Amino acid sequence: MDRRVLEFHVLALSFGREANLASVKVAVIVGGVGGARFLLGVKKALDLPAVGEGEHEVTALVNTGDDVWLHGLRICPDLDTCMYTLGGGIDSERGWGRAGETWTVKEELASYGADPDWFSLGDKDIATHLIRSRMLRAGYPLSAVTEALCDRWRPGVRLLPMTDDRVETHVVISEDGERKAIHFQEWWVRHRAEPTAHKIVPVGAEESTPAPGVLDAIEKADAVLLAPSNPVVSVGSVLAVPGVRDALRKTGAGVVGVSPIIGGKPLRGMADKCLEAIGVDTTAAAVGVHYGSRHDSETGILDGWLVHTGDTAHVPGVASRALPLIMSDVDATAEIARAALSLAGADLG
Amino acid sequence: MDRRVLEFHVLALSFGREANLASVKVAVIVGGVGGARFLLGVKKALDLPAVGEGEHEVTALVNTGDDVWLHGLRICPDLDTCMYTLGGGIDSERGWGRAGETWTVKEELASYGADPDWFSLGDKDIATHLIRSRMLRAGYPLSAVTEALCDRWRPGVRLLPMTDDRVETHVVISEDGERKAIHFQEWWVRHRAEPTAHKIVPVGAEESTPAPGVLDAIEKADAVLLAPSNPVVSVGSVLAVPGVRDALRKTGAGVVGVSPIIGGKPLRGMADKCLEAIGVDTTAAAVGVHYGSRHDSETGILDGWLVHTGDTAHVPGVASRALPLIMSDVDATAEIARAALSLAGADLG
Repeated sequence: MDRRVLEFHVLALSFGREANLASVKVAVIVGGVGGARFLLGVKKALDLPAVGEGEHEVTALVNTGDDVWLHGLRICPDLDTCMYTLGGGIDSERGWGRAGETWTVKEELASYGADPDWFSLGDKDIATHLIRSRMLRAGYPLSAVTEALCDRWRPGVRLLPMTDDRVETHVVISEDGERKAIHFQEWWVRHRAEPTAHKIVPVGAEESTPAPGVLDAIEKADAVLLAPSNPVVSVGSVLAVPGVRDALRKTGAGVVGVSPIIGGKPLRGMADKCLEAIGVDTTAAAVGVHYGSRHDSETGILDGWLVHTGDTAHVPGVASRALPLIMSDVDATAEIARAALSLAGADLG
Repeated sequence: MDRRVLEFHVLALSFGREANLASVKVAVIVGGVGGARFLLGVKKALDLPAVGEGEHEVTALVNTGDDVWLHGLRICPDLDTCMYTLGGGIDSERGWGRAGETWTVKEELASYGADPDWFSLGDKDIATHLIRSRMLRAGYPLSAVTEALCDRWRPGVRLLPMTDDRVETHVVISEDGERKAIHFQEWWVRHRAEPTAHKIVPVGAEESTPAPGVLDAIEKADAVLLAPSNPVVSVGSVLAVPGVRDALRKTGAGVVGVSPIIGGKPLRGMADKCLEAIGVDTTAAAVGVHYGSRHDSETGILDGWLVHTGDTAHVPGVASRALPLIMSDVDATAEIARAALSLAGADLG
């Protein structure tokens, strides 16, 4: 084991002994479905109430690169998936959207021939988008809008968009021999990630600034976790916001990632297609190396890396540990969160 | 009978003999529910197909003073009521909104505590508003948006907003001893027209211009009809658009109104509250005099005035005729339309 990693582990252990459970501050970088489920586990691991009130101890830094304007509505899939999941409104079988959802507006839009017709907007969900779009048009930043929406949902976790600026991930594909860029949602939802992605670009990220609270959450955290979300379009977009990577490298907290790749396959979704686009193998080891070590590389962010039982990941300068990473239920997910928090130095007991 | 009215009748008769039914061009000034039902009668009287195709012979000049932005959506109640009614999508029992409507979005907005909560937005209806709002924000004028929406509904009548400009009727009421202006919808829907209206003002009308086709429709019509709509906030708003009144006074067509007041009571709605605000009695005669004669007054617009059996209306310079004015079904309404067209000089044989 690398000397600095060893030092980190010693630090972690001493931190663990002193840690006051009630005051553990955790920042989690998340995308949509996987990220939201992971947050449920973090809440459970910290023994936070199901529907939270009061001071936030967990701050989720949520990807907004999937966001899109559709039918005049601002859709924030990852923020909403987190909000509905933590607030008890999610369709847990599907993983996204509202439980008991209906589709009247969508059917009517189709009757009008309104374009696009490939994105599923549920009626309940549309109310969220109406409020968000109205507030955004009135000049409220997305972070304030999200806070207002969470007044209803009380997710028990502070949900922060990675940025209040407009960042939208675009995917460069080939069509009739020509390259063209389409919105990530068009590639993902409409084309099911079938056309090869030559490039994936979080358009607007370079000029964006982190939303209020984002850097602070990383700086003041006792532990920073990377959820097992898509390393390219979810975690990658958050990392693309200037200042975030630096904050991760500088924070006094341990930074631990959870591999979204299990046995060479994505836990969920089509992350392999995204990894291919950036030239990273679909293995837990390759993703760990892609994130890199805070200590042994100039851009890396990790202290620790959790991989699934049976997977191995030699990531220079990063403490790796194998355990079951299938988030089959909240209890199993809480075990993963506990391991991540422990590896990050926040020993819960 | 006034000499000029007599001349008009002679003209009407001769016109009637020459009229080619297929080419009769009719312009109808309308509001919402009553206007939409009247248009069904006009279509039936002219033997137009239920779902029209091809050249429009009937142009409806529709009040937009009731329009309002709610939840970031542009709502055009009268245009939509006409469109849904003529296109076969109306909830005919209620008179407005879509048949088989559901209210999921509205319930969700209420769960968020979104304001206002007193306006009923149905899910199907919201699809219309989403398309309209998106097109308006993209820069399309309301008349073009309406045409696009009518691509689906094929109302068989050309629906023209009175103007593409923003005109919104406001009502001055007293609250805690102070006068304040509220949107017509707030007065009408939320307060059920209970607070006395001191004044009713179509805000923006003075600076508005008629939508493309409006003046032309009046000018080239063989007959212009005023539907039995609210004389103040429906027909009155259309008349408040500069140029409309002049066009009505100058057109070669006969201009005939249908009284919305029957036996001293409004046919529908609370038109009496609006008439009170402008100092006009709730009688067929008073409304006829309010519209006035094209010949005998400097601002009047009527050649003819239809009142309900048993009502009388002496309107100087206007030919008045009594017949049953209850629009109990399409056939009964077609009878009224036929009488109006006949009085306007477009004898259908």
